[in-house]
Amino acid sequence: MRIRLYNARIMTMVTAGEIIRGELWVEDDKILYVGEQKADNKENWEREIDCEGNLLMPGFKNAHGHSAMVVFRSLCDDLNLQDWLNNEIFPREAKMTGEDCYELTRLANLEYLTGGITAVADMYLTPETIAQSCADMGMRCVLVSGLNKFGPAISVMEERFEKLNNFHPLISFKLGVHAEYTCSKELLEEVSRVLHKYQVPFYVHMSETVAEVEECRQRYQKTPVALFEELGLFDFGGSIYHGVHTTAEDMEILKKRGISVITNPASNAKLASGVAPITDYLQKDIMVGIGTDGASSNNCLDMFREMFLVTGLAKLREKDPSAVDALKVLEMATVNGALSMGLEQCDVLKEGKQADIIMIDLKQPNMQPLNNIAKNLVYSGSKSNVKLTMIAGKILYENGKFASHIDAEEIYRKANEILERLR
Amino acid sequence: MRIRLYNARIMTMVTAGEIIRGELWVEDDKILYVGEQKADNKENWEREIDCEGNLLMPGFKNAHGHSAMVVFRSLCDDLNLQDWLNNEIFPREAKMTGEDCYELTRLANLEYLTGGITAVADMYLTPETIAQSCADMGMRCVLVSGLNKFGPAISVMEERFEKLNNFHPLISFKLGVHAEYTCSKELLEEVSRVLHKYQVPFYVHMSETVAEVEECRQRYQKTPVALFEELGLFDFGGSIYHGVHTTAEDMEILKKRGISVITNPASNAKLASGVAPITDYLQKDIMVGIGTDGASSNNCLDMFREMFLVTGLAKLREKDPSAVDALKVLEMATVNGALSMGLEQCDVLKEGKQADIIMIDLKQPNMQPLNNIAKNLVYSGSKSNVKLTMIAGKILYENGKFASHIDAEEIYRKANEILERLR
Repeated sequence: MRIRLYNARIMTMVTAGEIIRGELWVEDDKILYVGEQKADNKENWEREIDCEGNLLMPGFKNAHGHSAMVVFRSLCDDLNLQDWLNNEIFPREAKMTGEDCYELTRLANLEYLTGGITAVADMYLTPETIAQSCADMGMRCVLVSGLNKFGPAISVMEERFEKLNNFHPLISFKLGVHAEYTCSKELLEEVSRVLHKYQVPFYVHMSETVAEVEECRQRYQKTPVALFEELGLFDFGGSIYHGVHTTAEDMEILKKRGISVITNPASNAKLASGVAPITDYLQKDIMVGIGTDGASSNNCLDMFREMFLVTGLAKLREKDPSAVDALKVLEMATVNGALSMGLEQCDVLKEGKQADIIMIDLKQPNMQPLNNIAKNLVYSGSKSNVKLTMIAGKILYENGKFASHIDAEEIYRKANEILERLR
Repeated sequence: MRIRLYNARIMTMVTAGEIIRGELWVEDDKILYVGEQKADNKENWEREIDCEGNLLMPGFKNAHGHSAMVVFRSLCDDLNLQDWLNNEIFPREAKMTGEDCYELTRLANLEYLTGGITAVADMYLTPETIAQSCADMGMRCVLVSGLNKFGPAISVMEERFEKLNNFHPLISFKLGVHAEYTCSKELLEEVSRVLHKYQVPFYVHMSETVAEVEECRQRYQKTPVALFEELGLFDFGGSIYHGVHTTAEDMEILKKRGISVITNPASNAKLASGVAPITDYLQKDIMVGIGTDGASSNNCLDMFREMFLVTGLAKLREKDPSAVDALKVLEMATVNGALSMGLEQCDVLKEGKQADIIMIDLKQPNMQPLNNIAKNLVYSGSKSNVKLTMIAGKILYENGKFASHIDAEEIYRKANEILERLR
């Protein structure tokens, strides 16, 4: 499909915060042109959208989530991480089927679309049905292995790696494990062998709580970061999720290996896990992306809330109101997220890149006056400002409505049915 | 006007979190009936609204704001409180006219309406034009004196007290001062005499930063709370705004005098002022309400963001994921806010109370599944869920549109003009 979006402000994110006036052309799944108004635009467009001065920008990248956990939203709040996982989440997850994950991922995807999230890195139970769910809806999804000692064997991860990386243009699959505390050392060594066979990045929950780091120290006399480095798991880059409690030595390792940190501030606040040292990561030139985590610990999947928290909590942590400025946060939520997930074609708005684009409604009171749009996005933006969400050239959400192939009421009905069964 | 809202879920907030199925009738500015579906509802309604199972609840009360400061949104971020006030805000405010305040208050009011805020306690420069602005739009506004040694004389405050408390049903005026650090002791003593003449509650910014408390200790060898108690300023109740840095002795005074604390978590985070000890206030039975503060330090006027921050920051501060549960937060944002502002007729949904009501769209993905609606509101709610905002029986915002007497585009245009002049 050929779509022309004109009369727009455009923040390409090639340079964070820089905004041009002009237009953007989409052909099939790619950006054909982005720049100033063109005189020769009288082609046969299938759709021409007058942006009325509103803002086009790259979609937000949710660099860490567990989409299908939307079913646990507001079901088991106000507990610490280990009690929440062991007593509330794991027993219920044991009852979840692949079909449940298909349906619940659809609900999460609706929420992503309403908030301008155009890609998610999803670590959850049944990657096959999640992949199908996302492909059917049109959501871009980077599946991440959550291998652990209780679940499917390592051979399954390898099969998925081969299969799901060749399944659909919107879908990819990354190697990873759930966490140090859910894997034996033998399992981690096996994973390292697989990783070295494929020579690809690695993803893992790491250094989320003080207790997790302490228990790892007791088991191995080193931090989780140091342990994984020793096992060669960081040899080809990747990301750690959370990274709330890391040492200066940990940061040296992350820097050396090009490992990014995906911060999940709302989840870390709600579970009282702590505030990640974002200022330190930036100073050490460690790339930071942003994730929502799952809706059971957050409880919403809203990059606007996360963006404000990244800077607000950094300011509190450092007792410095200049800590982590808005432009850095916008980079984390878009470009860095994309790069950390291996979505090099989805980072910025540029000719030839994937057309993963959102339109931000500037004609709402929280965006006025139009003094500094980039800062408005981070400091006063809301998902209510998302006017349009396009993934790979397809408009999936526009003016409060989903595309015609998406039946939201039916998705809600099924999610509530599944909730009753798992409650 | 007589309006019937039927087929609703209703959270009256008489008991926080309790939800009934039924209907609600409005006559003129009041609630005529709230309860189960009625058989005899075939009266001549001017409007009947099918709520389609969505939630009716009391509007949010923004218990501390500076509405017209929307013009400074994203204009001078990332500074500490004193630099921000003295170098950026005060010089620009010196150029603001009463007419500017009228226009800019309109913009803030739009933002309140889109977020389900039905009343604001507004401390700002020209209460007369702010009162007119709110009355013209239909916003409920409790004006609060921001008396200080640089502004109008105390006699002006007294005149305003007499005049604005008899100006319009939506408007009231409270005695107060800006802060300890902007008042001489002599001025505070004069205020105390006026306060004792009228025997009414008192409002003030207090204990927002460590520096503020320290400077007060140096000047008077006591905390701001202890100083104001000694001066008799707390004799008739009222509120302190912020209350981030209070001692155990301060809390005893607040408790004894029935002073509520209005917390402004986003503003306190953004200015790196700290996290208020909400858990301590609750344990000591000190009433807590929630404010957005001004858009220059926040930068948005969104009670959903504030609600999540109240509980999220308390969990982090106490290292306890059970700290300050969602129902407490809902009470703060509605009932406590109303009571702290002297709006006893606007606290809950009940026959005879003012019809300050909002409808929350539950058919959006962030509210699904419908496991625990009250928790969903606090932990995953967004202003995008606000489907209708009614103040004193008048619908001012519905399905993304403002009432016909409100011209949003014109308000944006004027706000941008004023910005250019003050920049």
